Amino acid sequence: MIVTVTPNTALDVTYTVDGLAPDGVHRVREVRSRAGGKGINVARVLHALGADVVAIATAGGPTGAAVTAELGAAGVAADWVPIAGETRRTTTVLGDDGSVTLLNEPGPELSDEEWTALAGAVRRHEPDVLVCSGSLPPGAPPGGYASLLGGTSILDTSGAALLAGLAARPAVVKPNAEELREVTGLDDPEAAARELVKAGAGAVVVSLGPDGLLAVTGSGAWHAAPSTVLRGNSTGAGDAVVAALALGLSHREPWPDILRRAVALSGAAVLGPLAGDVDLAHYHRELELVAVRARPEQE
Amino acid sequence: MIVTVTPNTALDVTYTVDGLAPDGVHRVREVRSRAGGKGINVARVLHALGADVVAIATAGGPTGAAVTAELGAAGVAADWVPIAGETRRTTTVLGDDGSVTLLNEPGPELSDEEWTALAGAVRRHEPDVLVCSGSLPPGAPPGGYASLLGGTSILDTSGAALLAGLAARPAVVKPNAEELREVTGLDDPEAAARELVKAGAGAVVVSLGPDGLLAVTGSGAWHAAPSTVLRGNSTGAGDAVVAALALGLSHREPWPDILRRAVALSGAAVLGPLAGDVDLAHYHRELELVAVRARPEQE
Repeated sequence: MIVTVTPNTALDVTYTVDGLAPDGVHRVREVRSRAGGKGINVARVLHALGADVVAIATAGGPTGAAVTAELGAAGVAADWVPIAGETRRTTTVLGDDGSVTLLNEPGPELSDEEWTALAGAVRRHEPDVLVCSGSLPPGAPPGGYASLLGGTSILDTSGAALLAGLAARPAVVKPNAEELREVTGLDDPEAAARELVKAGAGAVVVSLGPDGLLAVTGSGAWHAAPSTVLRGNSTGAGDAVVAALALGLSHREPWPDILRRAVALSGAAVLGPLAGDVDLAHYHRELELVAVRARPEQE
Repeated sequence: MIVTVTPNTALDVTYTVDGLAPDGVHRVREVRSRAGGKGINVARVLHALGADVVAIATAGGPTGAAVTAELGAAGVAADWVPIAGETRRTTTVLGDDGSVTLLNEPGPELSDEEWTALAGAVRRHEPDVLVCSGSLPPGAPPGGYASLLGGTSILDTSGAALLAGLAARPAVVKPNAEELREVTGLDDPEAAARELVKAGAGAVVVSLGPDGLLAVTGSGAWHAAPSTVLRGNSTGAGDAVVAALALGLSHREPWPDILRRAVALSGAAVLGPLAGDVDLAHYHRELELVAVRARPEQE
């Protein structure tokens, strides 16, 4: 079973307005909301693929209740850790003028007891692959994810939480090029990825945006490129990559196959309307078309 | 007892951000939320004055639960009518640059059964004064308020809902100058107010912004002016006027006294940080200073 963990759950709300003007009064024409946070998005993608997955996530207050109800209605299996604080909301304001404006609440702090409950829920499910994804809640120690990691784990976070997580030797970390530059100070993604492998990561998968994915492992390095550049909603593409990595690791697939799946699923997410949605027809087509090339060996 | 009715309850949320930029990603620094909708704001002001008041309001979904919990914590007595739809939110985004941007959800439609339950709750409380305040929910017939009005009633709404409400002969209607112009087509507030008295209103109290209030009744007309122009948050000023009118009617005060109270309380609301808050020290000081003058009799 694949288990995803979301300590900083969100209700992702999308507002449609005529156009956003500072100082204006806006009538919201349409309100859509769904459970979010990266771990939940990863679980949603895996559920769409028919994989055996459970989302472990915090939920508190009326917004936590909304998150719980929505994910339940979507049929995604979840194990909720109740918290005293209120689950945060993110609001995306879509203007008819094409503008996309985000308002992100920071989320509540977790108590020591709530962290312990989260870790207990992870152990109880005995995951084959554990996915730790997204930002840590405010006030969390940077080592918050390290205390959860164990077995075969994927860590998708940035900054101090990423560096601290390497100590727990995750099987894979998945920074994008900018996040990788931020933690290593190196401009070259491949050299930077090798640094993180030395620091404890089993493999580093770097998202290069439209150029696909670069993977650096202890046994080799590969670049996987999509057959075409897609236009759409790139918000959930990283979560789809993580979902593919989790599925590949749980099937013990070779790296070129894992990367082929990850690039295809990332494109399928760009074509989905909201984070966590994937276009399965595109996914199955693109699986045959992704080009994977081994990178020359380096010292 | 004074009873207020809020068919289109809201959770009024205030976000503080650095500055609102279309297409930007904004970290929300502070989130405040409280129960809202005009009837609830009126009840909050009356509760602050120690008056015997009950807010009857709809509540549905997780946002309805948040509204219920917040008003309960504030100690305001309420009778909640459960609805199938989800209570709406209004979001006020305060930028450090001084911008104030509103995003208002429309709110859920009410079923016939829910309207009936709302009317039943009103009758059950046998109000001395009934306050019907604010917009009607989407899909409501313009006569929605008329079906609730009865006894001594105050109607604070606009447009078709205001015109339709006159048929139920409310004791007072409280449009602002712009709302009065919209329904009568007349530029002169006093002449326009006389039209609404002819159409069924017992009295018309017109808010003139910083110039105070004009009241036209079957027995006379008065203008009441504040002692000073205040700067602050004018959002809740109209609700404070309605609260003062309700209190004055319940005490059977003469019109000059009612208007003195209404102007003083309106100023106290401008000094309050959020709609429904009043500065009681200002209120008691200003009560002695408001200037009320009878208007010359007209044909």
